[in-house]
Amino acid sequence: MAEVLSLDNPVFKALLFYSMVCLLKMVFVVFLLMRTRVTKRIFPNPEDAGKEGKVRYDDPDVERLRRNHLNDLENIPLFIFVGFAYIFTNPATTVALWHFRVFTISRIVYTIAYQTQLQKPSRGMAFTVGLVCCISMAVQALLATW
Amino acid sequence: MAEVLSLDNPVFKALLFYSMVCLLKMVFVVFLLMRTRVTKRIFPNPEDAGKEGKVRYDDPDVERLRRNHLNDLENIPLFIFVGFAYIFTNPATTVALWHFRVFTISRIVYTIAYQTQLQKPSRGMAFTVGLVCCISMAVQALLATW
Amino acid sequence: MAEVLSLDNPVFKALLFYSMVCLLKMVFVVFLLMRTRVTKRIFPNPEDAGKEGKVRYDDPDVERLRRNHLNDLENIPLFIFVGFAYIFTNPATTVALWHFRVFTISRIVYTIAYQTQLQKPSRGMAFTVGLVCCISMAVQALLATW
Repeated sequence: MAEVLSLDNPVFKALLFYSMVCLLKMVFVVFLLMRTRVTKRIFPNPEDAGKEGKVRYDDPDVERLRRNHLNDLENIPLFIFVGFAYIFTNPATTVALWHFRVFTISRIVYTIAYQTQLQKPSRGMAFTVGLVCCISMAVQALLATW
Repeated sequence: MAEVLSLDNPVFKALLFYSMVCLLKMVFVVFLLMRTRVTKRIFPNPEDAGKEGKVRYDDPDVERLRRNHLNDLENIPLFIFVGFAYIFTNPATTVALWHFRVFTISRIVYTIAYQTQLQKPSRGMAFTVGLVCCISMAVQALLATW
Repeated sequence: MAEVLSLDNPVFKALLFYSMVCLLKMVFVVFLLMRTRVTKRIFPNPEDAGKEGKVRYDDPDVERLRRNHLNDLENIPLFIFVGFAYIFTNPATTVALWHFRVFTISRIVYTIAYQTQLQKPSRGMAFTVGLVCCISMAVQALLATW
């Protein structure tokens, strides 16, 4: 059991890898948000705005990125926590890897769908697929630690 | 020490279990939020709303669920991080289990109090009790890793 | 490898310590927020406000603390996740400790800069320094788990 949390365990190694991919994607959204704020000179505080900028909380581009980022914050920590518990259930490597991959792809598709304002079901579907991955892992971990 | 992070350690196993319970409760609030959005046809983006829905950020039911979810996001990851560090302090099993149980119950009570709009001190007390559990574990972990 | 996650590993022990410092600092902002709400009698729900309080979402002091707290939520879990993966890359102790210290200091400076409304580049610089620490650790963990 001591080997569960070791890079020799391909499932744990993959969890670390996909967690880093998801977190760096989240940071990418933060960069987009900062760039948009600077370009449009729209800031959340008077001391940021200075003389040339404006304090606004209703700019559609800024708020769209903020909602995207907030959705990442709701889902990516959930994935990492649940994935961490899930690897203790001793899952088949292939099954585990596909949970991680599908989640990671779902977050990338989600971000693209959000920022390019894709037609209706695409973003919601990406969100749902990612959430189902998390629920699947959470339920398995719950049963194993009952 | 290698056995700290093993399902043979009842404290670690319990931490995983209660973490999964808290996270699944958080996901339950997400489902309530999605159901309310669909029922009331109130969405955060124009492309979600389509022709029949509305984009609003001030619907009391939606915002109440959003605040509840945000409060979960503030507290449940905090609990899992702090609980993880706490198990390395080698706590007595019973004491540790009651930290986890009280926190988990506090989050369930919090959610019920929030969504049924219970009288004033109930939600605040649930929040405070949960936070005190976290602070207790954090301080013990801090002292052990000084 | 089994000793990576043990208090005998100075890097892991330091990660737990600095994580607790950051999380307790986050809780401190929550206390400031609760104190400000009670002092100014401004609450997020009608049942909290009662007869003497007001429900408002635009009070500058409350919103400033809320944004500070939200920024903590974006950055501190990121740091802990990334730091956890990073310790598996077998980093030099000194290098790792300075990553953790710089991040922790950056969050404390960030909070002070935010709440005392310091001149323009200070808060942004603290945020950027903290984020760079996280990206550095994330990229190293990504390369080690490729």
